[in-house]
Amino acid sequence: MLEELKQKVLEANLLLPQHGLVTFTWGNVSEIDREKEIVAIKPSGVEYSKMTAEDIVLVDLEGNILEGELRPSSDVDTHLEFYRNWPGIGGVVHTHSTWATGFAQAGKDIIALGTTQADYFDGAIPCTRFMTDEEIKGSYELETGKVIVEEFQKREIDPERVPGALVHSHGPFTWGSDGFNAVHNAVVLEECAKMNAIAMLVKNPEIGSMQQTLLEKHFNRKHGPGAYYGQSK
Amino acid sequence: MLEELKQKVLEANLLLPQHGLVTFTWGNVSEIDREKEIVAIKPSGVEYSKMTAEDIVLVDLEGNILEGELRPSSDVDTHLEFYRNWPGIGGVVHTHSTWATGFAQAGKDIIALGTTQADYFDGAIPCTRFMTDEEIKGSYELETGKVIVEEFQKREIDPERVPGALVHSHGPFTWGSDGFNAVHNAVVLEECAKMNAIAMLVKNPEIGSMQQTLLEKHFNRKHGPGAYYGQSK
Amino acid sequence: MLEELKQKVLEANLLLPQHGLVTFTWGNVSEIDREKEIVAIKPSGVEYSKMTAEDIVLVDLEGNILEGELRPSSDVDTHLEFYRNWPGIGGVVHTHSTWATGFAQAGKDIIALGTTQADYFDGAIPCTRFMTDEEIKGSYELETGKVIVEEFQKREIDPERVPGALVHSHGPFTWGSDGFNAVHNAVVLEECAKMNAIAMLVKNPEIGSMQQTLLEKHFNRKHGPGAYYGQSK
Amino acid sequence: MLEELKQKVLEANLLLPQHGLVTFTWGNVSEIDREKEIVAIKPSGVEYSKMTAEDIVLVDLEGNILEGELRPSSDVDTHLEFYRNWPGIGGVVHTHSTWATGFAQAGKDIIALGTTQADYFDGAIPCTRFMTDEEIKGSYELETGKVIVEEFQKREIDPERVPGALVHSHGPFTWGSDGFNAVHNAVVLEECAKMNAIAMLVKNPEIGSMQQTLLEKHFNRKHGPGAYYGQSK
Repeated sequence: MLEELKQKVLEANLLLPQHGLVTFTWGNVSEIDREKEIVAIKPSGVEYSKMTAEDIVLVDLEGNILEGELRPSSDVDTHLEFYRNWPGIGGVVHTHSTWATGFAQAGKDIIALGTTQADYFDGAIPCTRFMTDEEIKGSYELETGKVIVEEFQKREIDPERVPGALVHSHGPFTWGSDGFNAVHNAVVLEECAKMNAIAMLVKNPEIGSMQQTLLEKHFNRKHGPGAYYGQSK
Repeated sequence: MLEELKQKVLEANLLLPQHGLVTFTWGNVSEIDREKEIVAIKPSGVEYSKMTAEDIVLVDLEGNILEGELRPSSDVDTHLEFYRNWPGIGGVVHTHSTWATGFAQAGKDIIALGTTQADYFDGAIPCTRFMTDEEIKGSYELETGKVIVEEFQKREIDPERVPGALVHSHGPFTWGSDGFNAVHNAVVLEECAKMNAIAMLVKNPEIGSMQQTLLEKHFNRKHGPGAYYGQSK
Repeated sequence: MLEELKQKVLEANLLLPQHGLVTFTWGNVSEIDREKEIVAIKPSGVEYSKMTAEDIVLVDLEGNILEGELRPSSDVDTHLEFYRNWPGIGGVVHTHSTWATGFAQAGKDIIALGTTQADYFDGAIPCTRFMTDEEIKGSYELETGKVIVEEFQKREIDPERVPGALVHSHGPFTWGSDGFNAVHNAVVLEECAKMNAIAMLVKNPEIGSMQQTLLEKHFNRKHGPGAYYGQSK
Repeated sequence: MLEELKQKVLEANLLLPQHGLVTFTWGNVSEIDREKEIVAIKPSGVEYSKMTAEDIVLVDLEGNILEGELRPSSDVDTHLEFYRNWPGIGGVVHTHSTWATGFAQAGKDIIALGTTQADYFDGAIPCTRFMTDEEIKGSYELETGKVIVEEFQKREIDPERVPGALVHSHGPFTWGSDGFNAVHNAVVLEECAKMNAIAMLVKNPEIGSMQQTLLEKHFNRKHGPGAYYGQSK
């Protein structure tokens, strides 16, 4: 059933290690067939290098397994919460990518600092509030999805214009038109996190320039009239 | 003797450079056969690319060499201290992996900041106290093991729930059910160290968002009604 | 037309991913034939792995397309502004390379801190002022070029002695004698950004040295008279 | 003449890009034949991928070229100053490796923070004083060597126990028993620089732990009695 979708979800999952977004099995991609209302998702705890299209699990929007020998990703209920609330999205990704997870662990939005982010996200990538003990001890993965959806409603953010979020003390989720597009956004989100961290690092430096004489010496030994670096032309 | 164990310990050692955890020969893995009370460990100062299963050294729990032409890892006495004190563990790893060593050099626990760590460690990864001059000048590697065991006892930490520690001014040790599992935990510990450092870096930024006009311009030149980035569809 | 130039511009573009300067299609290289006043530039939004010399677009100095099925890079008007103003340059590069973009997002010059920069740049790599709302909403890419040219005029910097700049809240542009040389300068600029960020990080540390006893122990167990690390010689 | 030495110096130079220590041609290795008092060194500005043993230049201790079609590294006079002053060393390396150069640009010693450094360096890796304008405008590369030698004399450091230094606003030099050993020390110095920068970053964090409930949830969903991560065993 839905062999093409399963193949596509397999390939989207395999992009995660290729883009350096995952350690071991710490990431998962799903995609929905909106007509049939069926979601294809990575199985839980299976190594990317051993995964086949057969391993991809099919579930309905309530999480009932329709096909597949394996248990779906333990994050499946978070994915489904997005599909149920946001009819415009077609794919979902979760990773623990390093820089984005750093922001999540600091409980910080990835604020919009530059055009790299603006090319994909119409503003800050929001970090959720702390989850309550009740939420954590309850249907945890479902509640994780609810907390993200709540954050977007509270801040009046359109999830199709800001296709990603950070879960406080956890890590990033992204989404998109399909699984591939959601992975694309996961790559961008990680890169934006790294660029923003660097911007913070260099914002208020207490450091002065090098000596002017040394600057001139080095520039001129390569580019001045008596340059002696390299071989004569 | 114990050819299978030596082969397994060889393979676990070779995972260290594959996961980017070691420079040169700065790391070692051991595994114990609990029934025979024999430990197989990497030889000292041998390059990973030249190591064979024959080179793996077999020692008893007191450190007597049972088999092997080469000297065992200079850290063997630290490994043995863990095996003697913690009957539930089956493998031990020591590395100087970069981010974890940064924490060790700062004398800081890798505190639990997020679920990446919580998936593997039931709390902070502790950093030991300074060793005394007597300990350093005495049976140094044995004392290194004792200081870690002491830290776990003092803080009442179960080493099977927190399978790793940092030695002050030195670097990380991890352990697990066997050598492979201990390497797995070494990878996780390094990743948690990096994520925590990033979280610290971005926790209290003094930086504001980009201009709203520029944000809108870039978002819209890719996603707005008159988008002109890329080729027309 | 100009097959050799198009081949050269293709190859220069392919160097961007090889040097780790781009994510997805976030970068472009152009080169000018000064005699014919024709500029060859990367097409917009085309993946590097699928690009051929046929895809390279030829434009005149006013941006009229002379040859090519595809739309030129959306940044073409910035490139052209440089070629029109600076007759001594032959190639232009734009990327969102990570460390340089961090500086651009912080609105900071990459000041000259060391000889690595001095070997290529005769002083600080300037970051432009904020663009006005009018500039952003107007001919944005052209205005981006104008803002850079203005910065060089205002500071009296010779663009041939400082072959690169940062656009505030955006990222780096570099240039050079041809496309390859402009890519070379893009690599250097990124490396200088990283080195400068590290210098800022370590400038005012509040950290003291390790214990002298431990230092001696480790040095001597490898180099002292009774060294026992590694195998006996 | 000295074909074996030239081959060895070629191979030692090729290790620099393999270890990620150089961008473009920014590094050089030399080695001395102490009996003949002849030094073999990399030619200036030649790409590693195109270099052959024939290209290696032979010079005497005063810098006279004895063999070779190409100009020697522009840093040759710095290398020679070490060989003349320190009879116990056999190889010299200069790079602009990223983290070490960050320290040099900040004008900071790489102080001894951990056993990684102590395994190779008997204390801090010193950063030199600023060079005077006269030194920079004079025999610059020779003066660079003199400033390093001066720093070791002033601080009474034995160059065989601390086989490396940072030149202020420039970058690292290392040395050793031969070219290979000097490269080995260059790798260690770069790694120590990175570890020390990380230690500084995490030394005084202002960040608290995650929620205990969330910690327990994640640990238990993988390791508790009702674990549901991954496939049932």
